[in-house]
Amino acid sequence: MSETGRWLQEVIKCKAAVAWEPNKPLVIEEIEVAPPQANEVRIKIVATGVCHTDLYHLFEGMHKDGFPAVLGHEGAGIVESVGPGVTEFQPGDKVIPLFISQCKQCRFCKSPKTNQCEKGWAADRHDVMASAESRFTCKGKKVLQFMGTSTFSQYTVMNQMAVAKVDPAAPLDKVCLLGCGVCTGFGAAVNTAKVEPGSTCAVFGLGAVGLAAVMGCKAAGAKRIIAVDINPEKFEKAKVFGATEFVNPKDHNKPISQVLAEMTDGGVDYSLECVGNVGVMRSALESCVKGWGVSVLVGWTDMYDFAARPIQLIAGRTWKGSLFGGFKSKDGVPEMVKAYLDKKVKLDEFITHKMTLGEVNDAIELMKHGECIRTVLSVSPQ
Amino acid sequence: MSETGRWLQEVIKCKAAVAWEPNKPLVIEEIEVAPPQANEVRIKIVATGVCHTDLYHLFEGMHKDGFPAVLGHEGAGIVESVGPGVTEFQPGDKVIPLFISQCKQCRFCKSPKTNQCEKGWAADRHDVMASAESRFTCKGKKVLQFMGTSTFSQYTVMNQMAVAKVDPAAPLDKVCLLGCGVCTGFGAAVNTAKVEPGSTCAVFGLGAVGLAAVMGCKAAGAKRIIAVDINPEKFEKAKVFGATEFVNPKDHNKPISQVLAEMTDGGVDYSLECVGNVGVMRSALESCVKGWGVSVLVGWTDMYDFAARPIQLIAGRTWKGSLFGGFKSKDGVPEMVKAYLDKKVKLDEFITHKMTLGEVNDAIELMKHGECIRTVLSVSPQ
Repeated sequence: MSETGRWLQEVIKCKAAVAWEPNKPLVIEEIEVAPPQANEVRIKIVATGVCHTDLYHLFEGMHKDGFPAVLGHEGAGIVESVGPGVTEFQPGDKVIPLFISQCKQCRFCKSPKTNQCEKGWAADRHDVMASAESRFTCKGKKVLQFMGTSTFSQYTVMNQMAVAKVDPAAPLDKVCLLGCGVCTGFGAAVNTAKVEPGSTCAVFGLGAVGLAAVMGCKAAGAKRIIAVDINPEKFEKAKVFGATEFVNPKDHNKPISQVLAEMTDGGVDYSLECVGNVGVMRSALESCVKGWGVSVLVGWTDMYDFAARPIQLIAGRTWKGSLFGGFKSKDGVPEMVKAYLDKKVKLDEFITHKMTLGEVNDAIELMKHGECIRTVLSVSPQ
Repeated sequence: MSETGRWLQEVIKCKAAVAWEPNKPLVIEEIEVAPPQANEVRIKIVATGVCHTDLYHLFEGMHKDGFPAVLGHEGAGIVESVGPGVTEFQPGDKVIPLFISQCKQCRFCKSPKTNQCEKGWAADRHDVMASAESRFTCKGKKVLQFMGTSTFSQYTVMNQMAVAKVDPAAPLDKVCLLGCGVCTGFGAAVNTAKVEPGSTCAVFGLGAVGLAAVMGCKAAGAKRIIAVDINPEKFEKAKVFGATEFVNPKDHNKPISQVLAEMTDGGVDYSLECVGNVGVMRSALESCVKGWGVSVLVGWTDMYDFAARPIQLIAGRTWKGSLFGGFKSKDGVPEMVKAYLDKKVKLDEFITHKMTLGEVNDAIELMKHGECIRTVLSVSPQ
């Protein structure tokens, strides 16, 4: 254990996309990334997806003190160096940074019921900034780390409790999607809703998370998977992941919950809201069958209340929510990587665009206009 | 099976408390109760509790076309006669009328996940009137049956799928409470929340349903049961049923969810809303610990939305609802009667007042002013 001096490392200068202020394009800057401190790992980010949650921070303007920051939380990379006390990782390991930690010691980590971790950044703040512990500076200013990850940088520093070591055979430009969207949607169906074989499901919203939820419903053995979106162009893609039917709410002049009830003799067994819209959350609940219907909030928003009539629950429905698909992060992500390598889950089919870190603003525009499923950015050469 | 003529019965004239219109006292009238038709049972009601749901119909004025009616849905009685096709009951059987049926044939009855029944009145209407099938008339007018039961009458007629036969040793003036309030609260803890041994629970509202929920938490092995009410006089009673701590929200100048979080290292494992107030529903959810907290709506209201921030669920909480405590009615009520006879559940301790059917308006006034837990009315001599 006494590899003296292995953490007497240099500051790394590298490229990162810096968000200087809300509602402005990111700027590619040279930043300084400090060496990893105790229990930390410095990671060369090879590839990153661009996820709606990045946009949420940047454009919905909730956190005006959360700047400057480096966004990005759906990446994959290679360990460059480790700080004191790190024995689980060594340089060269392929890893996925995790925006939910798994310390394996707190009461949440010890419970099989949850993937929350009391020690992570998420434990006490919902605004997704790990401000105090940032290892980034740029032009003499401290730069915040978004969701603890900051994968829009060629290098980042993470606590080891928020890093998953993955199979050396894993293609990083694919498995990066397991850092957020695909695990989030897939796990919401499999772990949170606990979809049962033979059941009928509805997935609201066919972005990457929704498509992953469709894939999760299929993996769990659902018989009917009804994909719901107001953009009919998403429907062909949904079929690839296992959707059996499609409904465009715009094609009907009655509430979508009524349309689904008529299609399913009273409502679906499971519904998954993958949009992040409180009106859709209500529709998803109301689309469930009474008695045992389970509706899961997967899409992220924290600006408004979601609501419904009490009878909806009293009649036997259950309303749940899912964060990172309920996966305990360090345990779950390597398993999902293995499932991909074993061809049990799809990843390639989510990737509609490949770009470089320098094109991150173009990727953000694509996502804002719903013109992509996932764009993967190459960040550092491997 | 050919007991010819046993259903060639007479119309019975008897006393009933008739609600002629909303917001007016009930009137004791002589009504006519027609003989039971196919699959129906005519029951002499011996005793009935007075429940908030009766008041809800009478005073909250939601259902202006639901009059005249005979209210009451928490009764117990003796079979007087049966209609064609009834083999399960015979005159003299002690029974409890059920406002949720259990036909044992529909997809809900066949599922272990729910106590809904597709054939009952509750299947297609929430306004709790079984209008078409009433067997009551008074002064030449048809009188509606409330919740299918109408226990504020000396005789009522029910479909056999909504009648539970109970132990002949059962004291009807006690077990009548199992027709609604006690099963509702007890089952919400045991069947719906599925409270686990060693857990921490909070029960909001200490009426009969809330006290029964406290008793359910205790029966399930909860370690801490925090009783919450703005009326401190309810606290002594709650202790009788197993409450370990008491919180009066009026004693604190911060939200009750924060008070409970501080008492419990982050929130309770289970919370039960037994008030029927959408603000309390929100507080109850927010009082649960993230990760695995389960909050159950037990109190009845259908006039407003309940609401919360999505993060409440996304952080791992579950919101459920409970109707009749999740008990499959014909199966569950006789078991609860047995549990009472075996001294495993309390009933006597709920009863604070005993009156006669003629004093029903006094009983309603007591309940409106929160001055009783349960009043039991004697209806017919046994």
